[in-house]
Amino acid sequence: MDPQAKKIALRAINYGLYVLTAIDGDQVGAAGVNWLTQASFEPPLIAAAVKADNDSHAIIDKTGAFAVNVLGEDQLEIGKAFFRTTKVEGDTLNGYRFEPGPETGAPLLVDLPYWFEARVTDAIRRGDHTVFVAEVVNAGVRDDTVTPLLLRSTGMNYGG
Amino acid sequence: MDPQAKKIALRAINYGLYVLTAIDGDQVGAAGVNWLTQASFEPPLIAAAVKADNDSHAIIDKTGAFAVNVLGEDQLEIGKAFFRTTKVEGDTLNGYRFEPGPETGAPLLVDLPYWFEARVTDAIRRGDHTVFVAEVVNAGVRDDTVTPLLLRSTGMNYGG
Repeated sequence: MDPQAKKIALRAINYGLYVLTAIDGDQVGAAGVNWLTQASFEPPLIAAAVKADNDSHAIIDKTGAFAVNVLGEDQLEIGKAFFRTTKVEGDTLNGYRFEPGPETGAPLLVDLPYWFEARVTDAIRRGDHTVFVAEVVNAGVRDDTVTPLLLRSTGMNYGG
Repeated sequence: MDPQAKKIALRAINYGLYVLTAIDGDQVGAAGVNWLTQASFEPPLIAAAVKADNDSHAIIDKTGAFAVNVLGEDQLEIGKAFFRTTKVEGDTLNGYRFEPGPETGAPLLVDLPYWFEARVTDAIRRGDHTVFVAEVVNAGVRDDTVTPLLLRSTGMNYGG
């Protein structure tokens, strides 16, 4: 396999950008992720590939739950705040206000237009990321006029 | 959970559109799919959720291999041809020329700009789609100037 062809071909997959969050008591994890897809209508499942060595991963492993916050097209700066270490101050997470998800307690960022909460049903631990398959147990829409951010449009990518 | 909120929030995930193909002797399966993401850098894994009752699914189950052909932004019409039953005529698949993938034999559509072949490592059978986690074993680029099709831009969607 030509490594350069592999990189270019895999980067041809389209992605959004999401802030994935998880909580275990005082411990909060949050990460900017893009490797996410729906995986079933009934039950409603999603699959998210989460870096195996990050703090959100450890919390999801323990609690079996997480939330996904969808960034809008003008919210790249918010997304970038979640490429850094997670920091909770009062009711803010990396500088952005959050509230606990009703079903899982995982932080929901109030500035973001769409969110859902999910409970892990299966985990595939084969590579440098774990594929968590999870059932969507709650969802919300704060502003349905917002177009979700397309990762490709930012000039950034994560894949290949 | 509010079903309408669930639908809108899950449709906020961004997708491309891909033609997934598989082969088992004389049997060829091909399907337009969008539930696809990379899932690891090392080894290079992808995760694809494939409708459990379609012909490609049965072939992948048997052979453990498939190919992904990435549609370019002007190729929606080609994609639509793969929402129908698969039909091989000579060296065409649903009317579009193909050649066998070097590693898996799965059809590669010669008009599409990017492709990769993958071998299944894990399968999660929980919903109406199976999540196949698969290692990318070969990849190619026919035209790296083409922007991949964004499903949202077509006004169509599959999710929610």
